[in-house]
Amino acid sequence: MYKSAVLTIGNEILLGSTLNTNLAWLAQELAAIGLPVDFSLTVKDEPEAISQALALAWEKCDVVITTGGLGPTEDDITKNAIASFFDAELMFDPAIWEEILKRFAFRKMKVPESNRSQAMVPKNFMALKNDRGTAPGLFFEDGSKSFFAFAGVPLEMRHLFENQAKPLLLEKYGNDKQIWQHTLHTFGISESALAELLADFPKLKGVELAWLPQSGRVDLRFYGPSKIEVTESAERCHKLIEEYVWGENGDTPAQVLLEILKEKGWKLALAESCTGGWAQKMITDVPGASESFLGGVVSYANELKQALLGVNSTTLMQHGAVSEKCAQEMAEGIKSLTKSQIGISVTGVAGPDGGTVDKPVGTVCFGFSDLQGTWSFTHAFNGDRESIRFKAAEYALLSLIKHLRRTIA
Amino acid sequence: MYKSAVLTIGNEILLGSTLNTNLAWLAQELAAIGLPVDFSLTVKDEPEAISQALALAWEKCDVVITTGGLGPTEDDITKNAIASFFDAELMFDPAIWEEILKRFAFRKMKVPESNRSQAMVPKNFMALKNDRGTAPGLFFEDGSKSFFAFAGVPLEMRHLFENQAKPLLLEKYGNDKQIWQHTLHTFGISESALAELLADFPKLKGVELAWLPQSGRVDLRFYGPSKIEVTESAERCHKLIEEYVWGENGDTPAQVLLEILKEKGWKLALAESCTGGWAQKMITDVPGASESFLGGVVSYANELKQALLGVNSTTLMQHGAVSEKCAQEMAEGIKSLTKSQIGISVTGVAGPDGGTVDKPVGTVCFGFSDLQGTWSFTHAFNGDRESIRFKAAEYALLSLIKHLRRTIA
Repeated sequence: MYKSAVLTIGNEILLGSTLNTNLAWLAQELAAIGLPVDFSLTVKDEPEAISQALALAWEKCDVVITTGGLGPTEDDITKNAIASFFDAELMFDPAIWEEILKRFAFRKMKVPESNRSQAMVPKNFMALKNDRGTAPGLFFEDGSKSFFAFAGVPLEMRHLFENQAKPLLLEKYGNDKQIWQHTLHTFGISESALAELLADFPKLKGVELAWLPQSGRVDLRFYGPSKIEVTESAERCHKLIEEYVWGENGDTPAQVLLEILKEKGWKLALAESCTGGWAQKMITDVPGASESFLGGVVSYANELKQALLGVNSTTLMQHGAVSEKCAQEMAEGIKSLTKSQIGISVTGVAGPDGGTVDKPVGTVCFGFSDLQGTWSFTHAFNGDRESIRFKAAEYALLSLIKHLRRTIA
Repeated sequence: MYKSAVLTIGNEILLGSTLNTNLAWLAQELAAIGLPVDFSLTVKDEPEAISQALALAWEKCDVVITTGGLGPTEDDITKNAIASFFDAELMFDPAIWEEILKRFAFRKMKVPESNRSQAMVPKNFMALKNDRGTAPGLFFEDGSKSFFAFAGVPLEMRHLFENQAKPLLLEKYGNDKQIWQHTLHTFGISESALAELLADFPKLKGVELAWLPQSGRVDLRFYGPSKIEVTESAERCHKLIEEYVWGENGDTPAQVLLEILKEKGWKLALAESCTGGWAQKMITDVPGASESFLGGVVSYANELKQALLGVNSTTLMQHGAVSEKCAQEMAEGIKSLTKSQIGISVTGVAGPDGGTVDKPVGTVCFGFSDLQGTWSFTHAFNGDRESIRFKAAEYALLSLIKHLRRTIA
C-alpha cells in the first residue's frame, strides 16, 4: 500500500496562531485516491528543521507534500531548503516570471522585486502553474517517489493540488488502493454507553472502527480496504443503534434537516438569541438552503424579541428571556412573522457572565412551533461561550431532525 | 532555551476528518510560558508509530506532550504504547477508579466495563485528575525532561493543561524564557505591496517578523525574546502603515468594531442575505456584544427583504436582490426596524450556483446607513461558497471600522 506524508512548514502553526486546515484537507484528498497520510510533521521556517523533516518523510513514504514558505517575503526559505536537500541548483524560469508579470499587470500593480524569487525553480523540478497566486507549485520525481511543494495559502494550495498534483498522482499510482470509509453520526448518547451497546458487535474482516467523540455527539467511522465489507459493517451497526443515528458520511445537521423539510415541502424560519445567528449560518452553509429556509431574526436585545417577535413583556418580566415561555413565544412569533410552517427559537446564557443560581451559564431554552402546536425544553451545556453557542445551535437543528423523523415514521 | 514537542495521536487527524485544534491551542499556551513548540508530529493509533514519535520527541525536546487515544474504546492504545516506551508497568489505581465511579453515579449511569482501563497508570507516572471527563492525564519526569499525555477531547485537554500541567511546568522551567509577540492586522493591501512599503523597515535586534496572509487580509507578527524590542518594532511599523492596520494581537474585527461603537454610544443592527447570519455570529462571539449590538434579520428569501426590511418590489425587479440599491434599502430598513444608529447589509452571490455574466459568483453588495446618510459598494471575492461568505462577513465589519475611524479622526 502506498503511503504519503504531509510536511507543514511555518512558525505560525507552531506558535498556534494558525490552524492547520491544509493538513485536514490534503489528508482527505490523499486518502480518497489511495495515498493515505502515514504521518504529518510540522516544522519551523528553518533550513535544518526542513531538511530533517524531508529526510524522514522521503525515506518512509512514496509521496511527500510540503505546504508553506513559498511566498515572496523574507521568511519564506522553504524553496532553498528543498533545493539543497535534493541537491538541485535553483534556476530562473522566464515563463513563470512572465506569468507573475501578467498577474500584476491585470491588477494594474507594479511587481515588487521580492516576487522575482518566485520564478526560481530547482533543476529537474517541474513548476506547477498557480492560477490563484504568484507562487508556483513544485514537483519532482525519483523512481517510484514523488515530491510536491505548495504555498501555504489554503485557496492556492487546494487549487494547485486539484488541478495539477492530483492528475499526476492518479496517473502514477492508480486508484485501486483506496481506503473506504463509512461514518455514522450519533446524537443523544455517550461514547461509553454506545460502546456498551456495541460490545458484541461483530465487524467484518479487515474493517476498523474509529470512535470520534465530537462536542455533544459521537461519530463512528468504519474503514478498510473493501467497500462491501465497510458498508455492510456500517449498515449492520446502523440498525442496532438506529434511534441515535441522525446522519452519515459527513452529513451536517443542516443538510439532513433541509432534506427532510424539502420532502415535506415545509419552510423553516429561526429566531436566535444566544446563538446570535450561528444556527442560521449553519443552515445557509448548505447551497440551495433557500428552497426550505426563509430566514429569521437575531433578537439579541429584548426590545427586538418584543417588537419583532411579539414576546410579551410580562413573559420577560416574570420568566426572563431565558425561559421556555419566552422560547415558545419566540418560535410562534418567528413562524407567524415569516409565514413559515415551522419556527425554531434558541435563547440561553452563553456566558461567561450572566449566569445565576437558577440559570447557570450553559442553560439554553429551545422552542419549536409547527402546524400541530408549540413545545419547548431546556438543556444544560458544558464548556466555554464558543462551545455552548456551537452546541446549542447544533442541538436546535438535531432536535428538530429527531422530532420530524419521529412524526414521519 | 527550552523546547517542547506536541505529538498528536489519532487516525482521524490523518484521515482529515478532524482539524487539529489541540495543537494550535497548546502551541499558544506553551509559547506563552517560554516552552515554544519546536516541532509537531501526528501519527496513527499504532504502537510502533507512537513509539517512534516518542523516541524522536523525547530525544530532541525538554517537554513532550501527547494528545489523543486515552478514551475508553478499543482504538485507544496510546497508554500501552507510552508504558512500553518508558518501560513502565501498568498498575491499577483505585483512587482514579473511585473518581470514575463517582462521575457515573452523579449522572445516574452504570459504569461500562471498558472504562476500567482508564484507571490503569504506568508505574512512576502521576495521574492528573480530570474534572471534565473520565480519562485522567498522565505525567512523568526524568531529570530535566517532562512528559504529559492527555485525552484528545479539546475541552478535557484544555482543562487538564490549565489546571494541572501548566502549574507543574511553570514551577519546573520558570517563566523567563518567554517569546513575546506583537501582531498587526492589516486590511485592504496585498502581501507583496506591504512588503514593498516595508522594504527598508529596520527591525530591532533579535526581533523576527512573520508574514501571515489570511483570507483577504495580511497579519504581520513581530516576535522575539525581548518584550521592549518586539513592542517597539511593532509600533514603528504600525506608524508606517497606519491606514491599513485595523487591529492588533488577535483582535477580531467584531471586537474592534464593538469598541468603537461603545465609545460613540451607538447601536448597530444587521440585515444579512448571502452571509446568512455569519456576520451577526461573529459579532455575538464577543462577550458583552449586547452593549452595542441589537440584533438583526437574516432575509434569505426575497419575501423577507420586502416584508421585514421594506425593500421595494421594483428594486428587486429592476436591479435584483444583489444590487447596491437593494443593499441600501436593506441597510435603511434594518436601521429603522430596530431603531439603531447604524444598519449594515450584505447581499451577494455566494455560489456555487446563481452566478450570471453581470454578477458572477463572489459578487457581494454592502449597504451602510447611519445618522449622516446611506451608502453602498460592491466587492468581488474569490473562492468557494464558504470563503466568499466568510470574507464578505468580515469585509462588512472591517469596512465599517474603516469608515468610523475615518469619520472620528
